Order: sequence, then C-alpha cells, then structure tokens
Amino acid sequence: MTELVAQIPREECGIYGIFGCPQAANYVYLGLYSLQHRGQESAGIVSTNGTNLYRYANMGQVAQVFSRSKLSALQGEAAIGHNRYSTTGASFLRNVQPIRVESRLGGFSLAHNGNIINSSQIRQELEKKGSIFQTTVDTEVVAHLMSMNRETNFMSALIEAFSHIEGAYSLILLSCDTLYAVRDPNGFRPLVLGQQKSGAYVVASETCAFDITETKYIRDIEAGELVCINNQGLKAYHPFVKRKTSLCTFENIYFSRPDSIIFNNSVYNARKKLGCFLAKEYPVEADVVVPVPDSSNVAAIGYAEESGIPYTIALIRSHYIGRTFIEPDQKIRDFGARIKYNVVKTAVKGKRVILVDDSIVRGTTARKLVKMFWDAEVKELHLRISAPPTRHPCYYGVDIPTKEELIASSNSVEKIAQHIGVDSIGYISLEATHRAMQNGTQDSWCDACFSGNYPLEPEQFGSRQKQKELFTEITSDGAQE
Amino acid sequence: MTELVAQIPREECGIYGIFGCPQAANYVYLGLYSLQHRGQESAGIVSTNGTNLYRYANMGQVAQVFSRSKLSALQGEAAIGHNRYSTTGASFLRNVQPIRVESRLGGFSLAHNGNIINSSQIRQELEKKGSIFQTTVDTEVVAHLMSMNRETNFMSALIEAFSHIEGAYSLILLSCDTLYAVRDPNGFRPLVLGQQKSGAYVVASETCAFDITETKYIRDIEAGELVCINNQGLKAYHPFVKRKTSLCTFENIYFSRPDSIIFNNSVYNARKKLGCFLAKEYPVEADVVVPVPDSSNVAAIGYAEESGIPYTIALIRSHYIGRTFIEPDQKIRDFGARIKYNVVKTAVKGKRVILVDDSIVRGTTARKLVKMFWDAEVKELHLRISAPPTRHPCYYGVDIPTKEELIASSNSVEKIAQHIGVDSIGYISLEATHRAMQNGTQDSWCDACFSGNYPLEPEQFGSRQKQKELFTEITSDGAQE
Amino acid sequence: MTELVAQIPREECGIYGIFGCPQAANYVYLGLYSLQHRGQESAGIVSTNGTNLYRYANMGQVAQVFSRSKLSALQGEAAIGHNRYSTTGASFLRNVQPIRVESRLGGFSLAHNGNIINSSQIRQELEKKGSIFQTTVDTEVVAHLMSMNRETNFMSALIEAFSHIEGAYSLILLSCDTLYAVRDPNGFRPLVLGQQKSGAYVVASETCAFDITETKYIRDIEAGELVCINNQGLKAYHPFVKRKTSLCTFENIYFSRPDSIIFNNSVYNARKKLGCFLAKEYPVEADVVVPVPDSSNVAAIGYAEESGIPYTIALIRSHYIGRTFIEPDQKIRDFGARIKYNVVKTAVKGKRVILVDDSIVRGTTARKLVKMFWDAEVKELHLRISAPPTRHPCYYGVDIPTKEELIASSNSVEKIAQHIGVDSIGYISLEATHRAMQNGTQDSWCDACFSGNYPLEPEQFGSRQKQKELFTEITSDGAQE
Amino acid sequence: MTELVAQIPREECGIYGIFGCPQAANYVYLGLYSLQHRGQESAGIVSTNGTNLYRYANMGQVAQVFSRSKLSALQGEAAIGHNRYSTTGASFLRNVQPIRVESRLGGFSLAHNGNIINSSQIRQELEKKGSIFQTTVDTEVVAHLMSMNRETNFMSALIEAFSHIEGAYSLILLSCDTLYAVRDPNGFRPLVLGQQKSGAYVVASETCAFDITETKYIRDIEAGELVCINNQGLKAYHPFVKRKTSLCTFENIYFSRPDSIIFNNSVYNARKKLGCFLAKEYPVEADVVVPVPDSSNVAAIGYAEESGIPYTIALIRSHYIGRTFIEPDQKIRDFGARIKYNVVKTAVKGKRVILVDDSIVRGTTARKLVKMFWDAEVKELHLRISAPPTRHPCYYGVDIPTKEELIASSNSVEKIAQHIGVDSIGYISLEATHRAMQNGTQDSWCDACFSGNYPLEPEQFGSRQKQKELFTEITSDGAQE
Repeated sequence: MTELVAQIPREECGIYGIFGCPQAANYVYLGLYSLQHRGQESAGIVSTNGTNLYRYANMGQVAQVFSRSKLSALQGEAAIGHNRYSTTGASFLRNVQPIRVESRLGGFSLAHNGNIINSSQIRQELEKKGSIFQTTVDTEVVAHLMSMNRETNFMSALIEAFSHIEGAYSLILLSCDTLYAVRDPNGFRPLVLGQQKSGAYVVASETCAFDITETKYIRDIEAGELVCINNQGLKAYHPFVKRKTSLCTFENIYFSRPDSIIFNNSVYNARKKLGCFLAKEYPVEADVVVPVPDSSNVAAIGYAEESGIPYTIALIRSHYIGRTFIEPDQKIRDFGARIKYNVVKTAVKGKRVILVDDSIVRGTTARKLVKMFWDAEVKELHLRISAPPTRHPCYYGVDIPTKEELIASSNSVEKIAQHIGVDSIGYISLEATHRAMQNGTQDSWCDACFSGNYPLEPEQFGSRQKQKELFTEITSDGAQE
Repeated sequence: MTELVAQIPREECGIYGIFGCPQAANYVYLGLYSLQHRGQESAGIVSTNGTNLYRYANMGQVAQVFSRSKLSALQGEAAIGHNRYSTTGASFLRNVQPIRVESRLGGFSLAHNGNIINSSQIRQELEKKGSIFQTTVDTEVVAHLMSMNRETNFMSALIEAFSHIEGAYSLILLSCDTLYAVRDPNGFRPLVLGQQKSGAYVVASETCAFDITETKYIRDIEAGELVCINNQGLKAYHPFVKRKTSLCTFENIYFSRPDSIIFNNSVYNARKKLGCFLAKEYPVEADVVVPVPDSSNVAAIGYAEESGIPYTIALIRSHYIGRTFIEPDQKIRDFGARIKYNVVKTAVKGKRVILVDDSIVRGTTARKLVKMFWDAEVKELHLRISAPPTRHPCYYGVDIPTKEELIASSNSVEKIAQHIGVDSIGYISLEATHRAMQNGTQDSWCDACFSGNYPLEPEQFGSRQKQKELFTEITSDGAQE
Repeated sequence: MTELVAQIPREECGIYGIFGCPQAANYVYLGLYSLQHRGQESAGIVSTNGTNLYRYANMGQVAQVFSRSKLSALQGEAAIGHNRYSTTGASFLRNVQPIRVESRLGGFSLAHNGNIINSSQIRQELEKKGSIFQTTVDTEVVAHLMSMNRETNFMSALIEAFSHIEGAYSLILLSCDTLYAVRDPNGFRPLVLGQQKSGAYVVASETCAFDITETKYIRDIEAGELVCINNQGLKAYHPFVKRKTSLCTFENIYFSRPDSIIFNNSVYNARKKLGCFLAKEYPVEADVVVPVPDSSNVAAIGYAEESGIPYTIALIRSHYIGRTFIEPDQKIRDFGARIKYNVVKTAVKGKRVILVDDSIVRGTTARKLVKMFWDAEVKELHLRISAPPTRHPCYYGVDIPTKEELIASSNSVEKIAQHIGVDSIGYISLEATHRAMQNGTQDSWCDACFSGNYPLEPEQFGSRQKQKELFTEITSDGAQE
Repeated sequence: MTELVAQIPREECGIYGIFGCPQAANYVYLGLYSLQHRGQESAGIVSTNGTNLYRYANMGQVAQVFSRSKLSALQGEAAIGHNRYSTTGASFLRNVQPIRVESRLGGFSLAHNGNIINSSQIRQELEKKGSIFQTTVDTEVVAHLMSMNRETNFMSALIEAFSHIEGAYSLILLSCDTLYAVRDPNGFRPLVLGQQKSGAYVVASETCAFDITETKYIRDIEAGELVCINNQGLKAYHPFVKRKTSLCTFENIYFSRPDSIIFNNSVYNARKKLGCFLAKEYPVEADVVVPVPDSSNVAAIGYAEESGIPYTIALIRSHYIGRTFIEPDQKIRDFGARIKYNVVKTAVKGKRVILVDDSIVRGTTARKLVKMFWDAEVKELHLRISAPPTRHPCYYGVDIPTKEELIASSNSVEKIAQHIGVDSIGYISLEATHRAMQNGTQDSWCDACFSGNYPLEPEQFGSRQKQKELFTEITSDGAQE
C-alpha cells in the first residue's frame, strides 16, 4: 500500500469566498493572504459581475501573484479564491485553482481543500463516456460529473455529482449568480461561515481570514451541509446521509493558525491545552522550556505554565526562508537546519532544556536541531512532542509521508530518543490529545495518522494512483513541469 | 450577415508534422520558422517518443518561443507544430495550438489550418451531452467528437468525427504512435507531403518548409484524403464523399511564399503570370514599374517583363516592423505608412510610375502610399492590382473584413482611383486570375471573395457567431485577455 | 535642520566578507541570508580569483537575487557581499553595492554599512577636480578619494582617503589579492572578525552570520582599526587618531538579531535586561505580558520573568509580509495593522494586558495595534517600551524620521498614552538602557536619538542634503526610478 | 597587427538628436527605428526638459526596448538617441549609449557613431590622473577629458577635449540646455542636419530618419564642424584644423539605406551606378540577373539595366530572421544559408544566372548560397560584386574581420571563384567605385579596406587593444556578460 500512498496528490489548501460585496476580489485577496500558511505554491481568484466570470491565477504566493491592476480587473460583487500547496516540486499552471468550467450548465468555477479518494475511479468512468479532462486535479471530476448527469437545474446537478464522491472536501463553487459551499459528510476539513456588516456572506477555511476582512464569525459550515448564497440570501441544505464526524486532529495540532476558530473551538486553546497535558504526562526537572518556533510556541506556553519552568526563546527562526531559497554548493551543504534556525547560546548554555515541538516525522530535522543545542553546550536536552507518534499516512488531505519514512512507525520512543540524540522524549497520549480538543459537542475526530483507524477505508475505492500525465509540459526554461 | 462575419475566428495558420526522425522537434522548429508568414501570434510543438507526449507552446513568433533547451526537451521521433495568426489583439494562451487532448482514446494532439464552419452548432450539441470545452478554438470540436462517439478504434473515431464537420481544414494529429494528416473534401487550404533521405515523412502547409528541412516534395495531400504515418509506413485513405475542389485563389495571390509549390503548382509562376496578364489587360505608358514590397515583387516582375517598362525598386520596406511596434504619441501619429515604407525620391521624381500591389482591402494603406509618391514628385501614378476587386468576406480561413469595410464592394473602380488619388487603377480580371493559376489538372477554385460564389453555403450551418468566452482571463499586466 | 535630515540617505546594511575559502561566494550568500534583517532592498556579491573580479547584484532579497548558477559563476576564494536597506520606495540598480571600481589602483569593490556625513562636501570637491561619479551612494567618495590622491601603494591610498572621511562606517573592500575591513574611529556600527576551521577569515556585521557559516568568533574589529587579509595572513593597523567610542544603542534595542554577539556582548542578554529593568522601573498589576513579535519577544521575556506575570503569545504575526504586498483598494484600506498582526482574542479577553514593544516612532502603528486589543475585549492595556523616547533623528545610519514626525519629540508621555489609547505607558530610562548594555569595557555609547547628544556634530560638515540626481532613470515599466 | 585588430571594439551605430520639439522622445524613437539597420544590439534615449535629464536604455531593438509609457516618461523638448551594434555576442548593459555623465560641468549625455583610435592611450593617461571609468566604451574618454580639463565653459571644455581625440566620430551630446553635434575632421561617418516645419532642428546619421519624422534635409554636418543648437538657435563652429576628407566608401556600398542621402549624395544613385559600372567592367552572357536581397537589390537593378538581361527575384529572404534565432541541433546544423535564404527553383532552373552581391568577406556564406543555386539546377552561375575585393581591416568603425579571415587578402579572384564554386567572379574596380560615388564636390574617400591606404595611421596611437574588463558581470541567467 505504501508505494501507492506516496503518489496520492495531497492538497492542504486555503479557500475563501464572498458574496454581495462591491470589493469582492480585494477581500478574497486579503483572506487568501491570511490563509497563506495553508498553501504557498499557487494562488487564484475568480470573480463574477452577474454575467461574466473573471479569473486570474498563477504559481507563487498571494502577494506575488496579484497586483493592484489584476485585482481591479476581477470585477463583480462575488468571488472565490484558492491557495494551493503541493508536496513535490512538480506543479502545473494548468492545475492552479479555482478551476474554470464552461459546460451545458454555463460557466462556473471551483476551489477545493481536501482529497477526493475515489477520483481516479470516477475519472476513468467519465472518460469512457467521452469526457476530456483538462487537469490532473481531483476537483475536476466534480465538474464533469455535473456536466455529464441529466439534471437540468444547477443545484440538482451539483448534489447528484456529490452523491458519487467520497473523501475529504471543503469546497466552494461560484456561478454567475450563486456562491455554493459544501463540506463532506465526515467534515474532515474545516469550513467557517461569517458575515460582514454590509450583509455580505463569507466562507473560509479558518476564521483568521475573517479577522483580516472584518467579518463576524457566524458558525461552522456543518459536515454534510450545502450552503447556497445569492441575491435571495443564504439557504442551507443537508443533501447527504448523516455520518459520524471525523474532524482532522492535525488541524489543531499543527496546520491551522492559533488565532483561528475551527471546528467550533479556538485553536489557541486546544494547542495550549496540548502543552499543559503534555507537561502533566511527561514532566521533567529542567531550567527552561524552549519552543520550536513558530508552530510550537503556544504548546510551549502551556507546558511552561503547567510546569512552572520559565518559557525561553532560544531558537531564532529566519523570517526570510521561503520556497526560493537555493541551497549552497554541495561541499558546504551539510550545514544542517542552520539556514532556518539558530540557537541563542547565551540563553541555554549549561542549562537543562525542554524543547517543545509539534511532531516528529522522519526525524531528520529534529536531529539537526538537537545537534545545534548540544553545540550550544546545554546540560540536558528533553524533547516533548505535543502530538502522539505519527505512524500512518493520511488519505484526507494532509501531506504525511509513507509508513516507511515515518520514524515512529517502526521505532520505539527510546530508539527515537537515541537516534535523535536527546536525554528523553515524551509524546502526548492520544487520549489527552482528544481531551485537549474537546469543543463541547458530540463531534468525533479523525486520528488515523496516529491510530491507523481510517474513517473511510481508502482501499475500497479502486486505484489510488496519482493521475498519470499523458502530456509532459515543457516549462519556460526548458525543464519538464 | 456581415456583422456575424466579423466575429468568425479566422486562422490562416502554418502547420508542419514529421514522423520517423531522431531530431523531430528541431525539424518542426525549422519548418515553422519558414512558415512564419502564415501566422505570427503564437507557436507550439508537440512531440512523442512512443509512450509520452511532450508539449511547449506560447504567444510569440517561433524564434522567440523556442530555445535550445525547450527543443531538446521535446523528445521523440515524431512531432507536429503550429503557427497561429489571429485577426484581433485578443489572443489566449489557452487557445495556442497544437491543442492537447487526454481522453478515452489516450493522449493526442491537433494542429489545424482553416475554419470549421459548423463548429458552434457541433459544440452546442456536444455540451448538451456533457462535454466541457477547454478553449474557444474550433479545432477542439474534433477532439470531443472523437471522444464522445462509440468507435473504439482511433482511426474509426477520427473518421466518424470528421463526418460531422464542414468547412476548410488542413489538419495534422499526433498520437503516441501515429501521425495523421487530413485535408477537407473541398481542399480549400494547401497541404503537401514530402520525404527526407532518411525515410522520415513530412507534411506541411507549403513546400518552402520542405526546402529548409531537406525534404523532397512527393505530392499534395489530396482534397478529402486521410493519410496515416506510423512504424508500418504511410497509408492513404479517402473516407469522404468526393467533391469538386475549391482551392483558395488567395493563397497564390498573396498568402503563400513565392518559393513554395502548393496546389501542384509553383506560386512564383502563378504570381508572375498574374503580373503578365495584368499588363496585357491594363497597359499604360510609363517610365518605371514599382512593386509594393515584398508581396508584389514577383507580380511586378511579370508586369515589367510583359510591358518592357523597367522594373525599379522605389519603395523601401523596413525589415524591423513587427507586432511589438508601439505607435508614437497621438500628436505625431498621422505619419502615414512611413513607419513601414519609404519612397526613394531619386528613383521616381518626375517619372510616370506604375505601382503594382496584390490587393486593395479598405483602401487606407493604398491612399497613404500613394500620397508618399506624390510627395516624391512623380509625374503620373498608375495603380495595378494583381487580383480582382475584393468584394466579399471569406468563411474558409482567410482574414478578409466585412463587406461594408471592403472599398470595392460598394465603389466603382473609377471612384476607388479617385479616393486613393491615382491617375488610373487596373484590376486583373477573374478569368485571367484563373488562367494564371492553371496547374494542368481538373481542379476548380474558390474565388468567393471576388465573385461571392461560396462553395459551401455558410448560412446553412446555424449560428456563425464567434464562440463566446464565459470567462475573462486577466493577463499578467492586469488587462483582460 | 530637520528638513535636511529627511533627505540624508540612510543605510542600515549588512556586510559579509571572506578570504581563503574555495566556496567563498557560497559562504557570502549564506552570511547575507542571515543578515537579511539589516536590509531587504538589494543584494550583491563580488568575488575574486586573484586576477579577475566577478560581480552580481540586483534589487531584491538575497534568496531572490541569487541562483545556483550565479553563485558558481562568482569564482574565487575571496568574496564580499552586501544587503541594502533604503528608506524610500525609490531605489536604483546603479546604487546597489558592492560598488565596482576600475581605477589607476586596478579593479576593486566596496561594501559599506553606515553613513559618511561629509560625503556631499567631499563629492563637490572631487567633482571640481574632474571626478565623474557613477552613483549617489556615499561610499563612492572613498573610491574617488583613493583614485585622486597621489599614493601609489593601495593601502596608503586607502588610509589617505579615509583621513578625509567623517561619520559612521563599517566597510569592507576587496581587491584582487586582499580583503580590507575598516571600522570608523567612533565605532558606530558593529563589525566582527571570525575564522573557519580551514583558516579562512571572515568579517561580518553580526555573529549570526558566523553561526550559519561555521565560523568561530574571534573578536570585534576595533573602532578605528584597519584589517588586511591576504595570502600573507591577517594584519591589523590603527591608522586613525584614537577617539572615545560611540557604539549605537539602537543595534542592541532593535536592529541586530538576538542570537548575535556585537560590541563584545550578547544582544539577547542586553535585550532581556532591558525588559527586566523596564519591569523594575514601570511595574503594573496585570494578568499577561504580551510581546509585539518578533522584535520585542526577548524584552518581554525579561519583563515577564522580573514581574512574575505570565508571558503570553497573543499577537500573531504573518510570516508572509514582504515588500511585495499590494494594499487592497482604498475603500477597504483602513484595515489597520491587521495585514501584519492578528490578536488571539481567547488569550486576552477580559484580561489586564502588558504589551511590550521596542519603540514608538510616529505612533500610528501602535495606535492600530492598541485598537485591535480593545476590540478583543481586554480589560486594561499597558504599554511598556524597552527604549527611551525617540526624540531626535540619527545621522549615523539608522532610519529615524525627522523631529516633527517623532511623536515623543513634542508630546509628554501622558499625551502619548492618550493619543495611542492605553491605560499607561512606561519607557525605560536612559540610565537603565546604558546599564543593560554594559559589556565590561570602557566603551561609551551613542544615544543621540534619545538624548540629542551627537558624538560628531553633523552641522560642521557643510551641506547635508541628499545627493541630487541629475538624471532620472526610467524603469522597465515606464515609471521613474 | 592583425591579432590586435580583432579586439578593437567596433561600433557601426545610428544616432538621432532633436531640439525644440514637444514630442522630442517620440521623434527620436521613430528616428532610431528607421536607423535600426545601423545597430540592433541595444537602444537608448536621453531627453531633457531644461532642468533634468531623463534616460532609458536597454539591450534589444528599438521597438522592443521602448513602450508608450517609457516614451512619455522621457520628458522635454530635446532628446538624443542611439542604436548600437556590437561585433561579438558579449555586450553590456553598462555600455549601452547614450552614456550618462554627472560632472563639474553638470549632467549631460553622449551618443557616438565611429571609433576613437587613441582612446586606450587617453584612458590610461586619465586613469593615472585619478579618473574612474564606468564603461569600456571609447566614448567615455570624451566625458572624462571634458571633466578633467580646466575650461569652465561647457563648449570650451568640449572643444578642448576633442583636441586630444583622433579617429572617426559622428557624435551628439545633450546638456540640459543645448544639443551639440560634432563630426571628425576626416568626416569618416555621415551626419546630416534637418529641420521640421515647427522649426525644431534634427541631426541624424542618415536622411531616412528625416523622412519618417517629417524633417527637411538642410545639409550635411561638415567634416570638422561643431554645431550647437539651443534656445538661441543654431550656431556652427569649425574648431579643428581642416583636413582632406575621408568619407567611408562602405556606407554607400552596403551600410546606409538606399533611400538615404549621405555625403551630399543619394545612396540609391551611388549603388545603382555601382551595378551599371560593374556590368560594363564584367559583362557576361546570361539569362537572368539575380540580387542577393535586400542589400544588393539596387546594384542588381543597375547591372540588369546596363546589361539588358532581365532582373529576376530568385532568392527569397526570410523576414523573420533576427538575433534571437536559435540554430537547431548540431546534427542537422549543416543546413547552410537556408534559414535566411531560399532559391526559387522555377525561376532559375536551366538558366545562366548572374548573382549580384555587395561583398565577399570570408566566403562562407557565398559558398552556401552558390550551392543552393546549383541544387536548383542552374546552367551557369556568375558572381558579380559591387565592391572591390575586401582585403584590409577597418579602424574607423566598420566591422571587418582580420586580414587572415578575409578571403580576398590572400587569394586571387580565380581561386576565390574556384573556392566558392562559380563559373566566374567579377569585382568592380576601385576607380569605378569612386566614380559611382562622385557627388560633385572635392570630397575624397576612405577606401582603406580595399586599398590599405589608411587616412589616419592607427599604429601611431599606442596600444590598440580592446579595453580589458577587470570586472566580469554575471548575467541574470548566471552566464558571464
């Protein structure tokens, strides 16, 4: 299974849609900007003025992709946008979302966060019937399912299409007159609903995108809900059979911004509790608690508060690290994690240090970080992880490598400590993880990457291979895309 | 009818395909380079190594679009290429050919010269059945017709698809194992077949593309013929009902290069004869015969030889004029045709001049040129046109404006002479035009732009409106494409 | 005086030089990368292989400016590099450092951090003698002084040139065989010396650039010292009359990285002490201490530790903010500081908050931040500044606006608190500031921006106006540079 | 001597200046466009509004370099422009003219056509005195000579500077208030003076630049003349000792446009006479006269008229050949001159052909062309050259290779015919060449490239080596400039 897994296209993405606002594209731009952490590979916006759709999308981060003139060319009072993340260097301009569709149902556009696990199977069936696909993005099957079915009404066609689809998806769709938002029956990925003072409705991956666009959070789009927003207002539907939810644990641990509310809860609170519970489960005598910035800052605050050991900033993270960094010549390449982090020797020399991180994947980065601390002459070094050991790949939209690559899938905690070079490691328990995320509802969570319990069995959905490209597009510099 | 006409997308294009040659993409590049006069808007090449297809295409001329590294990335021993011309500034990267198709029939690519006159009708029907179109190029209907029909064999699907198509097309198609070349039953556009010493087959719009790639001309692809070239060699089919041919007169008058052989005949010979016959029909006493370079050079040679009046070069054409020329500020804008042409005063001052041109469309350029000659103090100025008056639009792939814009459609020759400001005008007769093109066969010609006799009645094919774009793509500089 | 001040070109820059290392340009690249916080406008590297000099420089950050192929084209075992910061949008490719010089002394290159306060005066005199300047950068006067004087030996020419120069400068210079490093007699700007295991010598603005390039810190280049490094090894000279030092206080408060050692001291320690002393001088009962990330993180740690009030992360800073961010349409522009910061409401709602920042300049940003906290429903809000009130402009290389623009130059602390909208403000005292920076030596400090005591009186150096550009260079998009 | 010669930087360039015209930059743009044949490597314009100078210059042809917005940013009523040609692939943005100068004499700009033969010597002397050069262009010595001398008046400084300079130069210079035009005492390169209806004065390399900008030709700037144009009108000076003129023969033979007037004569007439006299000196029985387009078109007309043999267009030249053409893969590279030319077989098969060309340099291109004619099955092939054998390099601004490379310097005409593969060759005599250019004045000509008689002995001017670059600038793609 593992080989296949590596080829599944994974897309942690950020989406933002707005309806009924004169500056629609500008607000989408701001929203995408605040969701940049969910995907840095490409960005796109589609807007509509009621009769035409306008689109601009390109490789790169939001602030690079858009200019004032492009934003003002994206006319109209409704718009959707998308940030995309891709796990490999390979990436395609054609695959940049929101995708464009011209069909019997008119023109419309789609932006998607998640992973449709039976997309290959559906694609094969559609191609047999004569569909011609434009991209290798799983989202495109939604468009073809809509176009190929016999429903004449747009929403009926949409619901019919989704009846064939399995997986994790938070998806927004814009036609000339309506903004649709859909969340899969398991509710794997977050999707929140808000409203501006003017009355304009907004949907987004996280509420941090509401704060920047002066939007008041109303509620989560529910798992299995379909929301339609147009000039007649907002209507909510529940066209899918109800299921037990499977909210993604990893969103709270790592992926979402701490200033966001998702899954009806504050990410900051969940993350701080992870740190507290971790301190209770794995206490150790020490002089300082040091976070791996910035993703573990809040968990470390929790750990420090619970343990009473002072919180210290002893790892400085470069603000300028980005996709574009060219590693230097091979001969001096083994300079470890120093390009991203530097240890403040003054702050830790001769001290017993608790280093708080949010996960260990392959162990390579952790090992390099640890070496930097020993070089700074710490007395003891204890690693505390604000998540259980990551042992299984994810099929629902988070980029976790294959089982073979995951250090925790075949090593005991002691062996990991030894490999990485620390005095001790403590991983928070799965039980405490769930407790930290309690949001006062009956929601249940997906913890497949820790437990191996997959809410939707990926095997049953036929071939899971990455969509093969028949065409190799040559890039401007002559390389293959 | 005329309003519609203006919106028909017209594509005088150049195509080149090769099969069985280790340097396939390089040869296509050279071939496209020599066919640059047929289209300067965009260029593209698709190659195949038997298993994968490789593609690069972009806006711009061939030499700008391709680099050494791009050419070497286009692997394989078979390739097709396309130069595109577009009548308006609007042009779309998505519309650049050869188009890419991934379908139940596998991956393949198409490059097309001509105009499918019932493409809108077919597109509507296909969309009703669920097809989603990627471009607004008429060629795309071929791909969808192939994918939507029930034929399981590639060539059967191709033939079935073409049974629905009407219009002018010389088309090449590349799958992973075969190069196909098709010419419509009327044979509007040229398509020639050749072979390299190594045995590799080549198809191209004109033989000038053979000369540059050391390819020996074998014969024309016949009207209504389908040729398949693969590892088993070349096979020719005639799947269409035979029709009377309608070879395009304008290819010989203006469009093709004089060093090409098309329609089984030398363009140079046809063009020189046009000049000779014109001299016989419209003689005048004069001192010099001056061509409008470079398209009328050969006709002027014919006129000079027949009349015995010396051929003189008195109009200098800039070599550097191109798409990129930015006209200067409005206030000095009325500098006429001087940016492109300059008169050699020394050569014509005080003389009686016969100016030979190949056509008068709106009359605007002619009028400006003529003024430049009077400014150079010529004594008399006689205009001779190596084509009959252009009075009707073309539906088969040549960019001729609407009837209203054509000066000859509503004005007598005397009025035109008066408007343009010459002492006399002589247009060659339609009869002599046909005589000049005689190629010793039973071929008949399309002269609809002169006579209004349309071989295929465009009205019968439903809506002829240009495919409407539902999406407006924003360009990199924020303008609408 | 103030109008003139605004026009002085100020350049907080980062510099890095290395001698005797096969991968010289690669190390400079890494060093500049770690010094990116000192200047983001442009970056450049000059290397030498002993006979030729190689140069690449461009607008943009280090990681954007350099590619693998550019780095490998920068041959040789010695190299210098420069990051430049510019206070205005206007910036010039010609002004990008290291500057290139071809003169009677051969080819050499200069990179400079600081501000030569008598450069206009010197330039005028040199121009009178016939010098033609290439840039408007103050550094260029060094080159012309060297070229115009009569010394035949390179180092004599260099020393003679510096005898005319007044101001703040830490400067490195590369000829084909020698790397020179000079620090002004006042020692305004930092400059450190280190050595790699291989023996290669390194000079840099801060030691964080040593950590990333595995360089051991040896000592500071002393104020008024000239160091020459070549194949004969390192030699140190003290060609200038000794003066009392005037180390820049602001480097410790804000400008340098906390993981650096400069001025013989740890920036982290100095900054933490600023927080401690501030807590002692301006205590207040509160629930949380919140830093303005990232520049105030360490001071806030000090404040929290001293006060015993928990350190909390309640302001989230976007990682993606950069020069390229396009502000949205005017109509939604007043979205305050939200593009850069967001408050974690959960962390502060209903609480008494101490917000720690490192300076208040105009007060505009502070006011916006403060509003965000009140919107998050804090109970009380107290602002603590880890620097004294900034009341005077800087002439020695830090970009501080004119007196009129500085809120503290004409307002009492109470008025500032009222204007900004907080319950109280506390600025650390000047005395405590100096105490926090004590490095155990006799060094004295420049605190002119707080006290108005200028170590070098700028008035005496004639016209202080920004060098006027006689030429306006037009940029690629038609704007004026 | 020959090795050195190859390194001399040679610059056949085009220059255009205008004073007193509201659309100055736009007119310079048009003028440069019409002078594009004199240099395609780079283009630049400097304008002035009386107080500031505005500059834009870049690599590339005029139409690529300038856009509407750049032209409108070039403010003011006076402007100068420059097209540059460079013999090698290496070319430098820094070297693009007009060069910018900021000096004790204020800001000014220079554009130059020619070659200053003692520039290295002068540069060395200036550097010894302390000058720092910015470029390796010979023109820069003029600026430094002006800045370094003691004259306080701009024009006196200019005249003093030119008193040191030897060589070929037609130069224009723009200060904030005056346009200067200078032509060397030998008058090697052309420079013409004209006036627009509005009264604005224009100076340009050739009159074709007047025609496009509606400028009336007044007269040539005389050899050794200095013209100043400002708000007080035009004043002419003759500050140099009068010499016998040495007008460049090659301008008439090849370099200038046939529609231009230079050296008080029509290029068309001179070139046609060359053809006539050639026919008289080297008649041969034949069926057709064929020019190598476009540079030999007019000479061939002359030959045809004199001989009575019909003029035929049998060589088609691609309009799309340019700097950007990438030659295909090595393996198919030997495709001769076919990328630029194609023979019309129909026009020459079985015929006795006279091919008229304007020069044979190395013989390589001629040989390839000749092969194409034999492939087209001509019966006989006679080559006629409208210039004497090119046997010597040029020191005055025309790019002619070293003696060793010139086929005529070491081979008899018979051997050349044999090498190239023609039945006969005829070169026009030097005497007839001079006769063809007779302009009714006492002017004498430079024919050093044919005769070896150098009007200014290059040896006497010290080192003639190309200015060595101490810095190697790395280009954007990592190559060395």
